[in-house]
Amino acid sequence: MGIDPALLERRLDELYVIGAEPDGGAYRPLYGAAWATAVERVERWLKDAGLKTQRDAVGNLWGRAEGTDKGKSIITGSHIDTVRNGGRLDGALGIVAGLTAVEALLKDKGKPRRPLEVVAICEEEGSRFSTSFWGSRAIIGAIDKPDAEIAAAMRERGLDPTKIASAARDDIDTFVELHIEQGRVLESARTPLAVVSAIVGTAHLEVTVTGQPDHAGTTPMDLRRDALAGAAAMVQAIESIAKSLGKPAVATVGKLNVEPAQINVVPGTVVFTVDLRHADLGGRRALEERIRSICGTISEERRLSLAIRTLQEKAPVAMHAEVRALLARAAKECGIQATEMVSGAGHDAQILAARCKVGMLFVPSIGGRSHCPEEATSPEHLELGTKVLMRALELMAY
Amino acid sequence: MGIDPALLERRLDELYVIGAEPDGGAYRPLYGAAWATAVERVERWLKDAGLKTQRDAVGNLWGRAEGTDKGKSIITGSHIDTVRNGGRLDGALGIVAGLTAVEALLKDKGKPRRPLEVVAICEEEGSRFSTSFWGSRAIIGAIDKPDAEIAAAMRERGLDPTKIASAARDDIDTFVELHIEQGRVLESARTPLAVVSAIVGTAHLEVTVTGQPDHAGTTPMDLRRDALAGAAAMVQAIESIAKSLGKPAVATVGKLNVEPAQINVVPGTVVFTVDLRHADLGGRRALEERIRSICGTISEERRLSLAIRTLQEKAPVAMHAEVRALLARAAKECGIQATEMVSGAGHDAQILAARCKVGMLFVPSIGGRSHCPEEATSPEHLELGTKVLMRALELMAY
Repeated sequence: MGIDPALLERRLDELYVIGAEPDGGAYRPLYGAAWATAVERVERWLKDAGLKTQRDAVGNLWGRAEGTDKGKSIITGSHIDTVRNGGRLDGALGIVAGLTAVEALLKDKGKPRRPLEVVAICEEEGSRFSTSFWGSRAIIGAIDKPDAEIAAAMRERGLDPTKIASAARDDIDTFVELHIEQGRVLESARTPLAVVSAIVGTAHLEVTVTGQPDHAGTTPMDLRRDALAGAAAMVQAIESIAKSLGKPAVATVGKLNVEPAQINVVPGTVVFTVDLRHADLGGRRALEERIRSICGTISEERRLSLAIRTLQEKAPVAMHAEVRALLARAAKECGIQATEMVSGAGHDAQILAARCKVGMLFVPSIGGRSHCPEEATSPEHLELGTKVLMRALELMAY
Repeated sequence: MGIDPALLERRLDELYVIGAEPDGGAYRPLYGAAWATAVERVERWLKDAGLKTQRDAVGNLWGRAEGTDKGKSIITGSHIDTVRNGGRLDGALGIVAGLTAVEALLKDKGKPRRPLEVVAICEEEGSRFSTSFWGSRAIIGAIDKPDAEIAAAMRERGLDPTKIASAARDDIDTFVELHIEQGRVLESARTPLAVVSAIVGTAHLEVTVTGQPDHAGTTPMDLRRDALAGAAAMVQAIESIAKSLGKPAVATVGKLNVEPAQINVVPGTVVFTVDLRHADLGGRRALEERIRSICGTISEERRLSLAIRTLQEKAPVAMHAEVRALLARAAKECGIQATEMVSGAGHDAQILAARCKVGMLFVPSIGGRSHCPEEATSPEHLELGTKVLMRALELMAY
């Protein structure tokens, strides 16, 4: 039978209305009511597909088909939580496509050789608490103890926060995830599918530029130490450096605050953030080093003082070479020459990579829209992505 | 006897403690308690100096010495209100120096030929209501009707808001004002005194730059329409244009807000203000035109949309040539070669220029500080400024 594209769309629709928000999109925060309803819905689908379901200590939902051989599992899935006003596909697609693919495989091919599982990971987005990758971090045994607020929310859902360690698994062979790209790369290149080569490493910096607040009328241009003029030069330079390093380097100044923020006062202080990403650690570090250096030069030239603080650092994670090759082969067998690309966003696969082989497939985001109600992928691309995922699971599990 | 510098400093101290704020500086908002106390104090000084005092309908305080001739008055003074945490000299110096100079003239030279007056103008700073030049606008008859809030505050001080028109005067020949510079020009040039040639014209613009908010990780540099990167290029260009036009052109981006202001989102919208000033209307317009043009070019290059709105426009005001020459002569006779400079800040003289000849003297601001408790001028410069003012008043009134 293969994939039923209408069923795929229907299931996505059904999940999307759970936690629908009045101003558009859905919101399924970890352990909230909409989240719980969505988990129940997926649980029923998994059972209907003939999978044996289980919820672990943090609320990850697993659906398992035993294999004729024993051994480690082949797993697919994604996260079930969403950001506020989240779209229809982020996370949901990986779960729905995974279960629809596994369901079709079980019907078409019978019992697999290896254990085959679908997982709805409880949280990835930092959707409610100041955490992210909560579900996948539990799976790799990386959570020591939840803070009091999360523990209370767990208890409300009947989960015992003292048992988190029991969610850890060491019997996963491979985790593959289908996800929307969340950017415009595939659409711009008119490519229907990508195999992810790596997930970028990210550094978040906070830059404080201090000059001298002065009267905008009485201070000639040559006597100013204008923190905003300096910060503007830095914003320009940061953009140029990221461009000149070439893909996949990106650098973004997303927040910028001016003090005293008066129309007739030369700015005395500017604080801005830099988000910088690269697929390999060397590239990420080169980017950061050049940015730090140019900010230093600009502040010296302009007699400004400069402080740079690292807020966060995450290393890049390469997808497993074997899984990349297998996903490319599966695509080819479905008639597609898949491109390879770096993921600029974070995904559960980067956490699970610590314990198993990981791989990811991306389908295009229309207009590159992400984390918003306009998030969409064409039906053909959704079907194609699911078919390639199904073929990859077949190659691994049968 | 001439000027008594100790008396000058003592009077400045006495005014400064009226409305002293716990966190530094003084605050004498229009029609407030500190304002009323300060007006009473100056009134007593004026009477002690032998002047006939009078408060007009808006609360401007006048002290008058009749001349042996009839005719229009020679007037000096400044405003008695202050900004929050205001300094010791802004406004206060013009009043205290004026009355100290007139007092000394009356003692030394007796009755003047022309009527000679000292004025404490009730408001210039927008210190309490969203108005400024309230006192001088009443003097030139430019206030139609106060709004309800100001009218209520006037009544609390026993002033009748229906009588504002009676404050208008058409019998002023010349108004001269001694003020601190509020910038670093004189200090940098090691010049103790300046004759003001003109008060700049100001335009306030609000610039809105709209791009596309995008995921900072998943959007390659070449697919971005980053509103902040564009705005940063504009901020840079605005600074360059003002520099290249040369003095007295200044342009300042004082406020800049980013949306959505998230560390991992490419900015979609930036709104910033531009304060631009020049001593002549042609220069101010050239500055504005070049700024508008470069912002248009940058937004086109970057596929951003641009909207520029004029928030406020004030024409430059030249000081009267005759008064400038007279002030320069007075300085010379006190042994000083006064420099000429443009005032980048607004002053009552620019309003009064509509009805009489006006002129201004500036003394240096230490470190250029203004509108803050650190505002200061060295005692020698205060004395010198007052002496030159006294000589100028003598040349005009005797």
